[in-house]
Amino acid sequence: MNSSPVSDRIPTLADIRSAAARLDGKSVVTPLVADARLSAAVGGRVLVKAECLQRTGSFKFRGAYNKLSRLDEKTAARGVVAFSSGNHAQGVAAAAQLLGIDATIVMPADAPAIKIANTKSYGAKVVPYDRQTEDRAAIARKIASESGATLVPPFDDPQIVAGQGTVGLEIVEQCAALGVAPDIVLVPCSGGGLSAGITLALATLTPSAKVHTVEPAGFDDTARSLAAGERVRHRNLETGLCDALLSPSPGVLPFQILRRHAGSGFVVTDDAVLDAMAHAMRNLHIVVEPGGAVALAALVRHKAKLKGKTIVAVASGGNADPAALKKALGQTTD
Amino acid sequence: MNSSPVSDRIPTLADIRSAAARLDGKSVVTPLVADARLSAAVGGRVLVKAECLQRTGSFKFRGAYNKLSRLDEKTAARGVVAFSSGNHAQGVAAAAQLLGIDATIVMPADAPAIKIANTKSYGAKVVPYDRQTEDRAAIARKIASESGATLVPPFDDPQIVAGQGTVGLEIVEQCAALGVAPDIVLVPCSGGGLSAGITLALATLTPSAKVHTVEPAGFDDTARSLAAGERVRHRNLETGLCDALLSPSPGVLPFQILRRHAGSGFVVTDDAVLDAMAHAMRNLHIVVEPGGAVALAALVRHKAKLKGKTIVAVASGGNADPAALKKALGQTTD
Repeated sequence: MNSSPVSDRIPTLADIRSAAARLDGKSVVTPLVADARLSAAVGGRVLVKAECLQRTGSFKFRGAYNKLSRLDEKTAARGVVAFSSGNHAQGVAAAAQLLGIDATIVMPADAPAIKIANTKSYGAKVVPYDRQTEDRAAIARKIASESGATLVPPFDDPQIVAGQGTVGLEIVEQCAALGVAPDIVLVPCSGGGLSAGITLALATLTPSAKVHTVEPAGFDDTARSLAAGERVRHRNLETGLCDALLSPSPGVLPFQILRRHAGSGFVVTDDAVLDAMAHAMRNLHIVVEPGGAVALAALVRHKAKLKGKTIVAVASGGNADPAALKKALGQTTD
Repeated sequence: MNSSPVSDRIPTLADIRSAAARLDGKSVVTPLVADARLSAAVGGRVLVKAECLQRTGSFKFRGAYNKLSRLDEKTAARGVVAFSSGNHAQGVAAAAQLLGIDATIVMPADAPAIKIANTKSYGAKVVPYDRQTEDRAAIARKIASESGATLVPPFDDPQIVAGQGTVGLEIVEQCAALGVAPDIVLVPCSGGGLSAGITLALATLTPSAKVHTVEPAGFDDTARSLAAGERVRHRNLETGLCDALLSPSPGVLPFQILRRHAGSGFVVTDDAVLDAMAHAMRNLHIVVEPGGAVALAALVRHKAKLKGKTIVAVASGGNADPAALKKALGQTTD
């Protein structure tokens, strides 16, 4: 079902700690921001992991750097190739630039302009494709086979999942510094690399915490897969407001982890996402892109279920086009 | 010239360290964010102190909490009163709420709605006044004399300056953690409490660093005072884009410090401020209000002077009304 190379080895906490050691001084330990207004609204304690302040503006740098930094010299010299709607593209491009590796990124022609421009700014070569008619994985595989470049999958890879899992390590450490333990952790989900990585870290370190994936309505393949107990795919080929969350099905490896340890999947409307983006700008003073704001959006819409809890919402990325920010600012009076 | 109570005791580094100890666990150690794009643009290393992520959305909480936490029980029981265009109001209100002190804030009726609403949300009583026809200091003094409440001045107070100086301590520590020392520190300036506090911390800990105040054109009383060697005032009674920076003259105490240790004052246009706000949203994923963005704006406009330097720009607040954010997003294609 997934065409990227898959390893069925589930990463361990040791893999996540090893990724954290590699990322030390390279990635940002993003702040865990107290959300006074949402805390009052849900009658609990709401903390926002501001991963939009990460290098490249999303968590994707973590997994990409962890993966690329482990390539041997000869492999690295042949370059890397990736396909991505934007944030993985930037993560791979920035990691490659830091490590002196050539990167080629296959990106949808309709990806947000800021994501394409940023990817190029890290020195990567961008190959556009048409999401309606072309197969990005096939294009990337062709480039890899012709050039000898290593394909860097967006989520179906133990080193990628371990890298994203460092977000979970930081959540545990930052909560401990505040003298709290999270009851619930809400994570934006597309292929599931971030939510699976966080789930793995928490399953060992804070087993009482429950991770819930959050997806936009119409792109809720993970929620439906978790309910069905097997991977299902959505048939939506349109792009959505949440351009970062368009994966048609959960990854094989992430789903193995989520099925075992995560709670049910939450689903939010675009309206709730825009409200959450405006809330983040007005009250937290951070810019969260639509796909990065679904966890915050779930908080607003699932208040009753979350009453009295300590909740961490991951704001997974901030690469929003100005039009999306303006739309969010225009719609709410929060 | 200033009607708030003035002490001429200049705070010391020990006062700033004492403020830091009081603020520990109360204020946010705001991140020092690397700005890749501006670093490339100026050919140096640009770091942004994201004080917009501070509790209440600006640095003002630091000074207010330092001051209020030192009131004896009997004095605290009579409450506090302050006058402010918005950020000091929120800082005093939030500090008072944390410490269980009643707060009354005299605010201009034309302050941004978000600042008035937030001040009320911290439980303070807000008394509006007309900036064109009424004297806010006189109103506040009347309230203080009738109620026995303590007047909390916005900048002309050693404990306020020491509290704001903790931003400087953090800049020194965060730069050291990155293995760099700042050459230049750019600080938004109104009455001068923040720039004076930062200047004091750096004068002892990093004497090679030069602090420059930054003000919006038309409200450049500190730049002109520094050039003249004495406090002058601007005659502008209009409100400006930078609603946080409307003080008609530098404070007595801040100016004593700035005159001795700071460099010349920089002045920026509203256009540069809007560019800087858009840059912060698009590239740093933080929301900076107009007055908080003047230091970033100076970077864009003073590139040549700053070439090859390690520069810290303080983003001092994030309480922007949506209209200002939309205006900034609409104007640039950065």
